[in-house]
Amino acid sequence: MKTFDVELGERSYPILIGADLLTEGRMLSCHMRGLRALVVTNEKVAPLYLDKALGALGDVSADHLVLADGEQFKTLDTLKLIFDRLLALKHDRTTTLIALGGGVVGDMTGFAAACYQRGVDFIQVPTTLLAQVDSSVGGKTGVNHPLGKNMIGAFHQPRCVVADTTTLATLPLRQFRAGIAEIIKYGLIADPEFFAWLERNIDAVIGLDQNALVYAIERSCRLKASIVSADEREGGLRAILNFGHTFGHAIETAQAYTGWLHGEAVAVGMVMAAQLSARMKWLEDADVRRIVGLLERVGLPVTFPPEMSGSDLIERMSVDKKAMNGIIRLVLLRQIGRADLTADYDSEQLEKVVAAQR
Amino acid sequence: MKTFDVELGERSYPILIGADLLTEGRMLSCHMRGLRALVVTNEKVAPLYLDKALGALGDVSADHLVLADGEQFKTLDTLKLIFDRLLALKHDRTTTLIALGGGVVGDMTGFAAACYQRGVDFIQVPTTLLAQVDSSVGGKTGVNHPLGKNMIGAFHQPRCVVADTTTLATLPLRQFRAGIAEIIKYGLIADPEFFAWLERNIDAVIGLDQNALVYAIERSCRLKASIVSADEREGGLRAILNFGHTFGHAIETAQAYTGWLHGEAVAVGMVMAAQLSARMKWLEDADVRRIVGLLERVGLPVTFPPEMSGSDLIERMSVDKKAMNGIIRLVLLRQIGRADLTADYDSEQLEKVVAAQR
Repeated sequence: MKTFDVELGERSYPILIGADLLTEGRMLSCHMRGLRALVVTNEKVAPLYLDKALGALGDVSADHLVLADGEQFKTLDTLKLIFDRLLALKHDRTTTLIALGGGVVGDMTGFAAACYQRGVDFIQVPTTLLAQVDSSVGGKTGVNHPLGKNMIGAFHQPRCVVADTTTLATLPLRQFRAGIAEIIKYGLIADPEFFAWLERNIDAVIGLDQNALVYAIERSCRLKASIVSADEREGGLRAILNFGHTFGHAIETAQAYTGWLHGEAVAVGMVMAAQLSARMKWLEDADVRRIVGLLERVGLPVTFPPEMSGSDLIERMSVDKKAMNGIIRLVLLRQIGRADLTADYDSEQLEKVVAAQR
Repeated sequence: MKTFDVELGERSYPILIGADLLTEGRMLSCHMRGLRALVVTNEKVAPLYLDKALGALGDVSADHLVLADGEQFKTLDTLKLIFDRLLALKHDRTTTLIALGGGVVGDMTGFAAACYQRGVDFIQVPTTLLAQVDSSVGGKTGVNHPLGKNMIGAFHQPRCVVADTTTLATLPLRQFRAGIAEIIKYGLIADPEFFAWLERNIDAVIGLDQNALVYAIERSCRLKASIVSADEREGGLRAILNFGHTFGHAIETAQAYTGWLHGEAVAVGMVMAAQLSARMKWLEDADVRRIVGLLERVGLPVTFPPEMSGSDLIERMSVDKKAMNGIIRLVLLRQIGRADLTADYDSEQLEKVVAAQR
């Protein structure tokens, strides 16, 4: 088991990564401060891992709630179901919410924990690759709005993150590949050596080679932890974690959260951000080809959905959370391994990037 | 104009109290960091003060949203309307929400500001006595749930509080009297001299004597500010501000937030908490009579609603946010001017207090 901390002063917490973590009797309860818990999960994950998670809660009095599965349910209405259950069962401020599932379950459960009685503890138990390398770490929680992704939410750090890599064995291949998009993102924004390692080892990762997989997850989490430690509430640096996401969120919103997976949309977004970076002469064309090549080897899309118009894409990008006073700010690459949030790009070049993909 | 700060380090902010504050051209915009604002108000307040508030926003680009009036609309569904408007008009993270109205508008607008894009600025412009002396100060925001009041929310401090006492002239008498309940609360929990002052001057306050009224508002706000400064997130001391509220919230919840006003429910709650304190021999019976006497002079209720059963009251109290591991914790009086949060009371005596009111 690998263990390291997200350093945030009194809000610091450990990330635990390894195989079969949920089979240990008190793996979750040992991080709790109270005597009761509510495990929130979904209809896909519950049959596979709910009993295990309850087992890892030791002698804690644990209730559970099973939600529908899918990004389209990451809404205020679903959030209400969590509050309904908590209040019907009279959970008080000492309760702990356990998020057992992917990014959708984690984001919603974390947001419910942020708001229930103005804040209770929660623990992340990510069961998808995307959640293990990205969404479970860093305290960003929230729900979507029909007009924009993650538009309603809170910063609320978990008590710990328990990433049991054994759960990835049951993950559908498409979801697994989508998670790899976020792993590649870390290389692109902050770690050129890791990107090169991925170019050499991507077949092993895709092939579920345990050593390669655990290494990729750990390195991703460490990169995210260090960025979050430096800028918890996204005053600056942290925004680079959104590389590819302004494009990606626009795609997800246009599809009403029922089309591509988040990682798939981000993959295209990273390509477009790289293409814009190259048009601004910040990145070599050869580097764009390396990025496209790696994503294609994973089987991820590299152009935005054919049914979507370029103007719709750009229109939807303008409600991005990083926009300021009407200007879309984008995370662009100076080189592979170095990203900046900037409004200092040519919007004509952005339109050309979009047009060139049609 | 009286001005003083709620001291909270980098989250410190000023409270401004005085007549005709909203007629000053940049009274609100001078506290803003961005160029856009959304004024949230309700159908009762909008015809009276919306134009004034927009005038006090100087050259800021200001939109507005008018909500239905009443505690029964302090829900997640109404909150959605705020998010809908913000996103439809593409407000970004640099926007400022302006809460123009009573406690319901303030709590909801503040919570919307806490969650929109994970946190934007907001300004409190309380137009009821209750909001001016209590709910607009201290950063508690949230909405109700059918099973419990203020169960969903966040701590989110405003950029400033602008209490224009001129707005109280249009306040319905019943609401005005309900606000006095919270003023009396401050004397009871923290300031015996202020309580004695109120006994001597209550007729002047009720009669809208400007000197008496502004003094009462200022002293209340200063007391609240000092308590909030000492304990922003209710780790301990701050809970005494909830004196009378565990009883009061149970009454409001039982009435589905459509019966008594908050201050009316709190008035009864303070009487019952005082009666329990006396039964525990912590408070003199003569002090209970002083408390009941003052509330009666204001015209506030001193026994809980006749249609409500005692068992229903106690059952509903058990979901209070201060409950821990199934035990109802109550704020009780050691003497007039000194309150403690405690589970160290005899629950039989609580039942006797309830029974004695029937």
